[in-house]
Amino acid sequence: MMIKVTLPDGSVREYEQGVSALDVAKSISEGLARKVLAANVNGEVWDASRPLNKDVSLKLLTWEDTDAKSTFWHSTEHLMAEAVESMFPGVKFWVGPAIDKGFYYDMDLGENSLNEEDLLKLEKKMSELAKQSNPYLRKPISKDEAVQLFTEKGDEYKLDLLSNLQDGNITLYSQGGFTDLCRGPHIPNTGFIKAVKLMSVAGAYWKGDEKNKQLTRVYGVSFPAQKELDEYLAMLEEAKKRDHRKLGKELSIYTMDDDIGQGLVLWMPNGTIIIEELERLAKETENAAGYKRVVTPHIGKENLYLTSGHLPYYADSMFPPMELDGTKYYLKPMNCPHHHKIFDAEPKSYKDLPYRIAEYGTCYRYEQSGELFGLMRVRCLHMNDAHIYCSKEQFAQEFRAVNDMYIKYFKIFGIEKYVMRLSLHDPAKLGQKYVNEPGLWKQTEDMVREVLISSNIPYVEVQDEAAFYGPKIDVQIWSAIGREFTLATNQVDFNSGNKYKLSYSNKDNGQDVPLIIHRAPLGTHERFIGFLLEHYAGKFPAWIAPLQVKILPISDKFMDYANTILETLKKADIRVEIDDRNEKIGKKIRDTEMAKVPYMLVVGEKEMNERQVAVRRQGKGDAGVKGLDEFVGELVAEIKERRGEEAINN
Amino acid sequence: MMIKVTLPDGSVREYEQGVSALDVAKSISEGLARKVLAANVNGEVWDASRPLNKDVSLKLLTWEDTDAKSTFWHSTEHLMAEAVESMFPGVKFWVGPAIDKGFYYDMDLGENSLNEEDLLKLEKKMSELAKQSNPYLRKPISKDEAVQLFTEKGDEYKLDLLSNLQDGNITLYSQGGFTDLCRGPHIPNTGFIKAVKLMSVAGAYWKGDEKNKQLTRVYGVSFPAQKELDEYLAMLEEAKKRDHRKLGKELSIYTMDDDIGQGLVLWMPNGTIIIEELERLAKETENAAGYKRVVTPHIGKENLYLTSGHLPYYADSMFPPMELDGTKYYLKPMNCPHHHKIFDAEPKSYKDLPYRIAEYGTCYRYEQSGELFGLMRVRCLHMNDAHIYCSKEQFAQEFRAVNDMYIKYFKIFGIEKYVMRLSLHDPAKLGQKYVNEPGLWKQTEDMVREVLISSNIPYVEVQDEAAFYGPKIDVQIWSAIGREFTLATNQVDFNSGNKYKLSYSNKDNGQDVPLIIHRAPLGTHERFIGFLLEHYAGKFPAWIAPLQVKILPISDKFMDYANTILETLKKADIRVEIDDRNEKIGKKIRDTEMAKVPYMLVVGEKEMNERQVAVRRQGKGDAGVKGLDEFVGELVAEIKERRGEEAINN
Repeated sequence: MMIKVTLPDGSVREYEQGVSALDVAKSISEGLARKVLAANVNGEVWDASRPLNKDVSLKLLTWEDTDAKSTFWHSTEHLMAEAVESMFPGVKFWVGPAIDKGFYYDMDLGENSLNEEDLLKLEKKMSELAKQSNPYLRKPISKDEAVQLFTEKGDEYKLDLLSNLQDGNITLYSQGGFTDLCRGPHIPNTGFIKAVKLMSVAGAYWKGDEKNKQLTRVYGVSFPAQKELDEYLAMLEEAKKRDHRKLGKELSIYTMDDDIGQGLVLWMPNGTIIIEELERLAKETENAAGYKRVVTPHIGKENLYLTSGHLPYYADSMFPPMELDGTKYYLKPMNCPHHHKIFDAEPKSYKDLPYRIAEYGTCYRYEQSGELFGLMRVRCLHMNDAHIYCSKEQFAQEFRAVNDMYIKYFKIFGIEKYVMRLSLHDPAKLGQKYVNEPGLWKQTEDMVREVLISSNIPYVEVQDEAAFYGPKIDVQIWSAIGREFTLATNQVDFNSGNKYKLSYSNKDNGQDVPLIIHRAPLGTHERFIGFLLEHYAGKFPAWIAPLQVKILPISDKFMDYANTILETLKKADIRVEIDDRNEKIGKKIRDTEMAKVPYMLVVGEKEMNERQVAVRRQGKGDAGVKGLDEFVGELVAEIKERRGEEAINN
Repeated sequence: MMIKVTLPDGSVREYEQGVSALDVAKSISEGLARKVLAANVNGEVWDASRPLNKDVSLKLLTWEDTDAKSTFWHSTEHLMAEAVESMFPGVKFWVGPAIDKGFYYDMDLGENSLNEEDLLKLEKKMSELAKQSNPYLRKPISKDEAVQLFTEKGDEYKLDLLSNLQDGNITLYSQGGFTDLCRGPHIPNTGFIKAVKLMSVAGAYWKGDEKNKQLTRVYGVSFPAQKELDEYLAMLEEAKKRDHRKLGKELSIYTMDDDIGQGLVLWMPNGTIIIEELERLAKETENAAGYKRVVTPHIGKENLYLTSGHLPYYADSMFPPMELDGTKYYLKPMNCPHHHKIFDAEPKSYKDLPYRIAEYGTCYRYEQSGELFGLMRVRCLHMNDAHIYCSKEQFAQEFRAVNDMYIKYFKIFGIEKYVMRLSLHDPAKLGQKYVNEPGLWKQTEDMVREVLISSNIPYVEVQDEAAFYGPKIDVQIWSAIGREFTLATNQVDFNSGNKYKLSYSNKDNGQDVPLIIHRAPLGTHERFIGFLLEHYAGKFPAWIAPLQVKILPISDKFMDYANTILETLKKADIRVEIDDRNEKIGKKIRDTEMAKVPYMLVVGEKEMNERQVAVRRQGKGDAGVKGLDEFVGELVAEIKERRGEEAINN
């Protein structure tokens, strides 16, 4: 019997029943087949070698696909288990998922333990086993049989897992000499795993409960090529050097204080300069794009957040209330309701739309203290916020303009890799998880998708992850060393207008409810500056560097000329200081390099006599001798244009 | 017997015992005597006619002195009582003090009541009585006699007052046919009162308790010349037109919302432009003066405010706490502790001083809802805050620089009348009301006084009103129509450094505690913008006006040229709009005048053909036809220089 296989491009091919995704790949090309790690079959991830017995939609998954990566790491975890079992016969395994980057497995080693040396031995063993290209074999098994099997093995962990599984849905996977209770899927065979690194060992209580036995957790990562592993390890090494908490302290960007509170950032003068440059950029950009600015308080009454739906659903992520005059006041977790109130303060007509209001609004959110992390997870957020109130007709253009703004910023900051993650609703959940407006969902999702496609913006679609009130876009960006950050969301909202009773008079003198776009291209100062610290390794481009120029007189004799330079640069609004210490020029240069100041001007006899400066560029050394005015002119242009390539490639 | 009278200039004169201050004045000059309303005798305000029986320090008080004004109004209140008694025999009086501007008296009219017409009659009667120049006669009386007197009159109100008075301290005052229980002092005679206005009648519960009888309260004001009353009434009339709440709404400056909360201002786009211009001015000025900027959270933990002394002493003026993770968090009532923590975040040496950090910090203070008033009394304050950490040697220069900054701002805003009120400590209260550092008090008070004198700044000294931690200056300014505003305080602080354990390493490698200057020359956005609305009557100078230019095409034919003008002005960063309505030019001009836009550009055939604009200045009409580029150049210069005279004299 033949079945029909529909591929992502819509083409339909016919195959014998029982064909595997791998067979389909081979029928297309051998090269493709060599890259296939798993398959998406009717929306589920399957082993590429599993037989297809009826008509299906099929997507072949390769290393580029997130689901394939997870499968790859999950299979590597089984490979690790095989190696561990060979080293410690009788070892018992609990669970071991693929994680964001790599995998882990929790195991009960009995009397044994693992040290760094053991990890190296395991890696070696895993390489040997991988080279055998043993296939991962899937075997459905009845619950009774499975219980019998693991009872015989005396494996209380798998028995515990089994107790929660339903008969008919249970499978075993085997490769080489190792068999595990596992839902799968897996890659075709171990030969795909070309490079493995076991990162660390840690203790982990069984089921996360400290009253239970402590198991041994081994973290690892693997790649289909040694080169990729090498790059990944180099990136980790670089990320450690670029840690925003380390750089934030070294460069006096921010501090925290126990008396103020966890997750509450005190921005020191250097950090504040960066904040002000970011806000200047945002204001210029938003001003040119027709936004108006507003300023709103940081608190609001209970009723505001009952209307928004925050209090009933997200009270846990808000600060607790302040009881005053018989009312509860809350620190605002977002700026939307305050902006809606400004929209509502005066009657609006269609002529006032699109009405765009922006504010670097400071919001407060409660994060568990264990979740707090440097600038990345904080409790006080300065948000590059704005709300656009528009008609349906205006929506596509407004949404496109917002996306253009993102792209403009990415260029300025040299962010070359980014993806927009478009979260859509699930029609089956209308009226529950999603506001019941099927027409508006279709319309806005289509409009958003069209804008993304026609703007040629890389994006992925995710089902069933929209906001309650409309589709949303999460923007993911990668730093210069390839680490991923979630920057901001960009949301369509066709519900808040109703909730807050917002309206405008249309051309027919009727009242319409505006659509609202929530957007924050620069995210929060906290997260964005944390990102920039890593992205630039603290070597900020001149326009945003806290100190832009340091003047290094070779000796005290040149202090007068150094002061002339200082005043000239200050007049051009350049942030400049003199290193007036009684130190050798070599030490002055080294210290200024360490402080990551973009430009150094070394001045001695010749420079003084000719009104010149000997320019050094941070990380690049000597950049030649220039006339003072020429240097000022060039730097002013660099700052004005917000040039940044130098800093990233540094 | 002779007594010695020491005058404020230090000169000592001898007089017969029993001489009065008025006699002393006469001995100096008849002209002076005609102006003396009361006297300050050894620090107490006395009747100018009261005999002096021993050596005294004497200051003659005239209309220019606050104490003389209070005496004058208190005496007018007795004059009013005399007039009321003549109209309603049997009326009984409760209390009636002089107030900020004028006086009131609470009275029990029995079955009678007062309407507007009655007030006019009373004014007339008062004028008649005033012209009699009846002297105010002081008569000490024993408590028994007084009780007997008011018992006979059946005056339960004065008997109630008497029950709380001590024998030996009781006096009666009489003028014409009226006698009252009164502590005094009073002016020499009713002839000084040349102009009276009874402002209003209101009900007032006896002792402010609504369970008591309601008395009739009459408010009034009086002056030593009719011209002064006329000016005062004209000022009130103008102030009503310039009411910041009225203008704030008309010009879309700010709004409030019940769901956000009372006293919490939502700054609309027009108000935000003013805020941003003020902040730009502050940043430019502070940057040039060597300040660095910081950004701090709006909350802090309990301990921060226990250390500052806020929680033990001023908890009532703070918002209530938020309980989180077992700690209490508070909205910050001021920025100082946060700034201290930034000073403390990194070790400081004498080379880092003066360390000046500035922030437009947003603070939250609890004001009773009855105290809230427009932008003048609010619960959320955006403060032009900064703290200067310096050594004792640096103090005078830093303090002078702060004062210079105030004066600079006054010039920009055309504030011609201002006084600095220097509040000093009372040595008798060291260790209680004031931190026990007699040397530092003397030193800093002397330094502050010297700076004020040498800078030629008008100031008054007030005893026993300093802050706990040092002398302070309250800055009082007068708007264009002569209304007084308290703008900001400027404080010396030699205590917080110790409390927060702040220190810096001095030249000898020891540790010193810095002196701290708290300063906020532009006060808060709320109060300052409230002041500016009145000061400019909403007709802001171009540099700070929300909309700077409106282009008024005479007809649609000139829309293209209007757009050319728009783009030209926008490129020069001028805030500009086109009135593209299909309206007659006369209406466009009227509406733009009403909206108080500084410049209107009327464009028609001639202007289009010659690339010109017909300029109209708000409130001044036609300002001639100019080349477009000439106009832009002039306006850019006006904005850059922040010129403001035009607006004030408008």
